[in-house]
Amino acid sequence: MTRKRTFQELQAQQAPVAAAAQRRRPIAVLLDDIRSLHNVGAIFRTADGACLEHLHLCGITGVPPRDEIRKTSLGAEEVVPWSYHPHPEEVVARLRQRGYQIVALEQTTASVDYRTASYRFPLCLIVGHEYNGMRESLVSLADLSIEIPMCGVKWSLNVSVAFGIAAYEMCSHWAEGVMERG
Amino acid sequence: MTRKRTFQELQAQQAPVAAAAQRRRPIAVLLDDIRSLHNVGAIFRTADGACLEHLHLCGITGVPPRDEIRKTSLGAEEVVPWSYHPHPEEVVARLRQRGYQIVALEQTTASVDYRTASYRFPLCLIVGHEYNGMRESLVSLADLSIEIPMCGVKWSLNVSVAFGIAAYEMCSHWAEGVMERG
Repeated sequence: MTRKRTFQELQAQQAPVAAAAQRRRPIAVLLDDIRSLHNVGAIFRTADGACLEHLHLCGITGVPPRDEIRKTSLGAEEVVPWSYHPHPEEVVARLRQRGYQIVALEQTTASVDYRTASYRFPLCLIVGHEYNGMRESLVSLADLSIEIPMCGVKWSLNVSVAFGIAAYEMCSHWAEGVMERG
Repeated sequence: MTRKRTFQELQAQQAPVAAAAQRRRPIAVLLDDIRSLHNVGAIFRTADGACLEHLHLCGITGVPPRDEIRKTSLGAEEVVPWSYHPHPEEVVARLRQRGYQIVALEQTTASVDYRTASYRFPLCLIVGHEYNGMRESLVSLADLSIEIPMCGVKWSLNVSVAFGIAAYEMCSHWAEGVMERG
C-alpha cells in the first residue's frame, strides 16, 4: 500500500553537501530589494531544492544570518552559495561579461510566457520587490523578460511562489538541453 | 525600450470576477492541516492566478476572514470559491464519486515526477501539513502521488511554493489537453 516515505528513507536519499554542489545548475539568481525575510528564506530553500548556482542578494534584501530567514530556509543558506551587493546593476554587468543571459521575472512591455521563453545557459534570473517589482534600471538591462500567466482578478503571485515556478521551469529547460546535447 | 507595464496597463488586463469564474480550470485543491495562515493566503493568491476551481480547507487549516490570510492573499479569498470541512476524507470520497482524480503532493513510496505524471481532469490536488506532511489516511486514498524533484540537501520546499509549482504544471497539462481535443 502506498504510504509516506519515512524520515529515515528521506534521510537516505539526502545529497551530501559536496554532491549537491557538483550538481548545481548554471542558473544564478539576483534578488533585488526583497523586503520580506520570509520570502528570502523560502527562495533559499527553493534554490537548494533546484540546485541553483548562486544567490546574489542586492539592495535592501536581507542577508543571513537572520532568524526570520532561517525559519523558512530551514538552513539552506548554509549550503547555497550567496553574496551581498548593494548595487544590482554591477552584478548584472559582471555576469553579462561572463556570458550569462539576464532574465527578468517581471510584467514588462516585452514579457513572454515563462514556459515558451528561449533560455540560454548560464543565465541569471532576477526577481524584484514584492510591491514595486524590479527597478526600471534592471528591467532595461535584461536580455529577456518573462511572466507567469495570471488568469484571475489579481495581477501577481507571491514573489517566492513566482520564483519557484520560474526556477523549476528553467531547470526543466536546462535538463532537456543536456539530454539533447547527449 | 522595454519597461515595466504601468498600474493602468495591468489594471486594464485584469479579468472581471465573472470572467475569471468562467475560466476556472477543473482543478480543485484540498488543504489538509495547513498550519500557517500566510501559506493559506499565498495559496489563495496562486489559486486565483491559475483560475483553480475550488479550495477545500480541512482540519486545522485556518479560514477567512483573517488578517494574516489577507496579508498574503491580497483579497483573493473573495473571488476563489472555498469551503471548510473538518474531515478531508469525506471531501475526497465525495469528489471521487464525482469523477475527480485524487492527487497527493507528497513523498510516498509510489510518488512520480510532477512533470511526467498522468493527470486526468477534473482532479483534486491535496497538500498537507508543513512539517508532518499529509495524514496517512489521505495518502492511501489518493489515485496518484506526485513529487517535485529535490536535488539539494533539504527534503522539501515551502508548502505554498511547492503548491504553486505543481498547480501551474497541472494547468499546462490541462491546456495541452484542451488543444489536443480541439
